[in-house]
Amino acid sequence: MIILGIDPGFDRMGWAILEKKLGKEKLISSGCLITKRSLLYGERIFGLGQELEKIIKCFKPDIVAIEQLFFFKNQKTALKVSEARGMVLYIVASKNISVYELTPLQIKMALTGYGRAEKQQVQKMVMNILKLKKKPKYDDEIDAIACAMSCPAKL
Amino acid sequence: MIILGIDPGFDRMGWAILEKKLGKEKLISSGCLITKRSLLYGERIFGLGQELEKIIKCFKPDIVAIEQLFFFKNQKTALKVSEARGMVLYIVASKNISVYELTPLQIKMALTGYGRAEKQQVQKMVMNILKLKKKPKYDDEIDAIACAMSCPAKL
Repeated sequence: MIILGIDPGFDRMGWAILEKKLGKEKLISSGCLITKRSLLYGERIFGLGQELEKIIKCFKPDIVAIEQLFFFKNQKTALKVSEARGMVLYIVASKNISVYELTPLQIKMALTGYGRAEKQQVQKMVMNILKLKKKPKYDDEIDAIACAMSCPAKL
Repeated sequence: MIILGIDPGFDRMGWAILEKKLGKEKLISSGCLITKRSLLYGERIFGLGQELEKIIKCFKPDIVAIEQLFFFKNQKTALKVSEARGMVLYIVASKNISVYELTPLQIKMALTGYGRAEKQQVQKMVMNILKLKKKPKYDDEIDAIACAMSCPAKL
């Protein structure tokens, strides 16, 4: 089963392709899409969408696991993240791919067994389980990997 | 100039096609897209997007005027509206159509000259200016018309 994990965002959007097979997990690919602030808003959202289309076309995921916003402090950021989420959900639905939404709490629970785990603990678990040698440059990328790992293999 | 006004939403999304020509405004068409709550989330956002695609294909707008969220009380609703906005912005950008974003305050100012005007006052102005005989069933539809009317004809 191929899972595409997404950590939605507008400035940066993390993505990860994870294979779950016979109880084993293997990271196939991951990255972070970055949009230039100098571009128009429409160009940025369109650019993100086009990259996402390429990733889906290339890896043909069976399911998309995406982080869900729950509580937030910064209203403006939350609205922008939601806009990016809306774009992702639309593209994924247009390809007829199922979506599994996870809250940060669910991701923390799945990876550390503790819903209030620190970000660093979650990242450490991701690195250990997948035996990653190098930590990804952006947190968004590792968050997307964590999201894919927390998605149940059988739905 | 053909303006597509959008009042973004997830349960209901208002839309309006307005023609602005030589200082005159004419409402060509308008409506309200409604998604069934019984459907899956992905199906709903995809359905809204497909209807929007049809409207764009049919009326070929030169510009899309869309309401911008500013302040909000209900976080959950605001996030859902933003997701719908993200989907709209992505589709519009993919058609290479410009977007003009308006806050509720700007719309009120443009139509009544007063930024804190009541909803009813704005609706009355819309009805009077466009000489509408019947008030649209849903507020979302009249809000979309107001949004299109508030968009400057020349950008």
